[in-house]
Amino acid sequence: MRPRDIKVLILGVDGYIGRALSIYLKSKGYEVEGVDDFSRRAFVEKIGSASLFPLPDASEIQFTSVDVFSEIDHVIKYYKPDVIVHLAEQPSAPYSMIDAQACVDTQIRNLSSTLNVLWSMREHCPNTHLIKLGTMGEYGDWIYERIDIPESSRMELLHVDDNDWTSGIPDNWISVDIPTPKWAGSFYHWSKVFDSYNIEFACKLWDLRATDINQGPVYGTRTRDMKGNPETRFDYDSYFGTVVNRFVVQSVLGIPLTVYGKGGQTRGYINLNDSVKAIELIIQNPPKNGELNVVNQLTEVLSVHDIAIIVGTLTGCEVGVVTNPRVEREFHVYNPIHTKLKKMGLVRPRKMVDVIPEMVRDVEKYKENIIEDVILPKTNWRK
Amino acid sequence: MRPRDIKVLILGVDGYIGRALSIYLKSKGYEVEGVDDFSRRAFVEKIGSASLFPLPDASEIQFTSVDVFSEIDHVIKYYKPDVIVHLAEQPSAPYSMIDAQACVDTQIRNLSSTLNVLWSMREHCPNTHLIKLGTMGEYGDWIYERIDIPESSRMELLHVDDNDWTSGIPDNWISVDIPTPKWAGSFYHWSKVFDSYNIEFACKLWDLRATDINQGPVYGTRTRDMKGNPETRFDYDSYFGTVVNRFVVQSVLGIPLTVYGKGGQTRGYINLNDSVKAIELIIQNPPKNGELNVVNQLTEVLSVHDIAIIVGTLTGCEVGVVTNPRVEREFHVYNPIHTKLKKMGLVRPRKMVDVIPEMVRDVEKYKENIIEDVILPKTNWRK
Repeated sequence: MRPRDIKVLILGVDGYIGRALSIYLKSKGYEVEGVDDFSRRAFVEKIGSASLFPLPDASEIQFTSVDVFSEIDHVIKYYKPDVIVHLAEQPSAPYSMIDAQACVDTQIRNLSSTLNVLWSMREHCPNTHLIKLGTMGEYGDWIYERIDIPESSRMELLHVDDNDWTSGIPDNWISVDIPTPKWAGSFYHWSKVFDSYNIEFACKLWDLRATDINQGPVYGTRTRDMKGNPETRFDYDSYFGTVVNRFVVQSVLGIPLTVYGKGGQTRGYINLNDSVKAIELIIQNPPKNGELNVVNQLTEVLSVHDIAIIVGTLTGCEVGVVTNPRVEREFHVYNPIHTKLKKMGLVRPRKMVDVIPEMVRDVEKYKENIIEDVILPKTNWRK
Repeated sequence: MRPRDIKVLILGVDGYIGRALSIYLKSKGYEVEGVDDFSRRAFVEKIGSASLFPLPDASEIQFTSVDVFSEIDHVIKYYKPDVIVHLAEQPSAPYSMIDAQACVDTQIRNLSSTLNVLWSMREHCPNTHLIKLGTMGEYGDWIYERIDIPESSRMELLHVDDNDWTSGIPDNWISVDIPTPKWAGSFYHWSKVFDSYNIEFACKLWDLRATDINQGPVYGTRTRDMKGNPETRFDYDSYFGTVVNRFVVQSVLGIPLTVYGKGGQTRGYINLNDSVKAIELIIQNPPKNGELNVVNQLTEVLSVHDIAIIVGTLTGCEVGVVTNPRVEREFHVYNPIHTKLKKMGLVRPRKMVDVIPEMVRDVEKYKENIIEDVILPKTNWRK
């Protein structure tokens, strides 16, 4: 379909990806509407930080809380979008581990926003394509040390009644099609697992359709549409700043890059520009009604140690170590299948090594805005 | 341990099981404290019904919302229970399917109450044994048509890279230990799945200990401790009344027993008396710190059709049929493993056929209180 015939509603348009996506889709000719309740600004303020880049005027954005049903229902009812891109969630794992209130707030906000959107779609636009930002962190179970992470909500395994397989598999095996096993490492990541289940259940029950994007950490200061200064927010604190953004800020300050523990934590990364391109490809490739399509959105698999080496090499910055505040494995195998976006047309993604210099230049311009003491972690997940 | 040395805190003590459990444990010599915010009374009132039996005076109960952290934290901090029995959730599947508000309210209330208890235990009493009421409805996935429902939070299956097994299993299989696959059939049941994950995660992260009781539908009007009139609430409406209770009320009114659809829906049932006995056995058999013990709490596997036949045979009541408002399979295999309670000492459970006459006698006494038009289902799950 031609972009100008597609009405896209972005929930959470004031966020890091939301802003960039809105600019990108408009430049391609899509009809775009965005809503936000500016809670990301409030969250980041609460932990004593702020976006490094000045935030653009918010007046063009409709103020709507996605976690208040009547508000989001009103928007969906009157705008009747062809596509809803749902980015309106609390996105920080460390934030969800601060205390009971932050934990409960994260799960309530995230689950209720997604449920509200689903109920509203059921009522007003059951053919709309819901695109929901999830996370690769839904696959934290240790079985993925031994098998590849699938790109599907179901997986086929074998069941054998006999538990003693020392002399091989007995004849009474059957194949079983099970929900892809999930396990999360923070209450935030669990909220995304729960969202995924609620969405898949609603797709089956009400014949809705959705794409669940399991995204790796996103990094970057701009998309290629941004010609002058960066036009989206940029967080580098220990709660809302992902590792690459933090390392770039540390390199600009000339302070050591703080690797958590041994640095073997391996994830699939994607640049901001490829992240919004991927969302456009997903808009153009909707699933059928009744289906949930799962897409693993990543372009490079790297360990924290690898990233420190890349940033250190490019900037001359020293690599330091801090005690890991998280409860996580510091060395592990990580083999996520990610073929769907390639098939849709996401080719020649930007490499982290090519993006870092641009990030350093952008951050340099706002160096005097950096608040140094928000960078080191303050929340210990264990206790 | 001797009952008098065990301090039990019952969350949701004003509910159907909460009342019965409190009376039972006190009669055995346990030190019991109970809290409730009387939301069950409010829920049932909202859908136009009321407990058939008059509710006892609530003055002895501490009014506390478990879904408000400061309130439950205060109670746990000062009472320092050895055991917390958490029954304080919205328990109705059809209620969660009414509309967006009831759905979101169910998931928010249930998740936040459990999270609040976990955070408070972490802070004040990490050795306390949390006993959480879950549901057998967490195992709704169609794989359980083909394999038994386990009594554990992990399951061992085989993974084979090759997906073509027509000529047998290739040699490259490995066994994988995965989270027991779960799937739910209502937003209420999903809230219980999510609770289970949050609890297991907290047990591993903070070294807490818990037992997750996957309970089948409970029925009955009294426990054996109640010598005079029944002393707990009794619901028979289409939202909060489970099938057996509803059938007994219909038989007393002399109206046909309303089987939903084909009546092949098969579940594991347990009588109220055995349900509280089972909880006592679980109190006496706590898991180690860091562990989540999963117990399937049921004593008889019956289909709705079977139950209609039992009640019809005993009371002479006719069996009718209504269109199934739920989205569920109406014929299926159902083989839940349930050996743990037997090993703990739950022997010679009451049979449904022996309990029905006692229920009919109790309901007869309050016949003039029955509100007939709350019995038939009003919420269509599909749309």
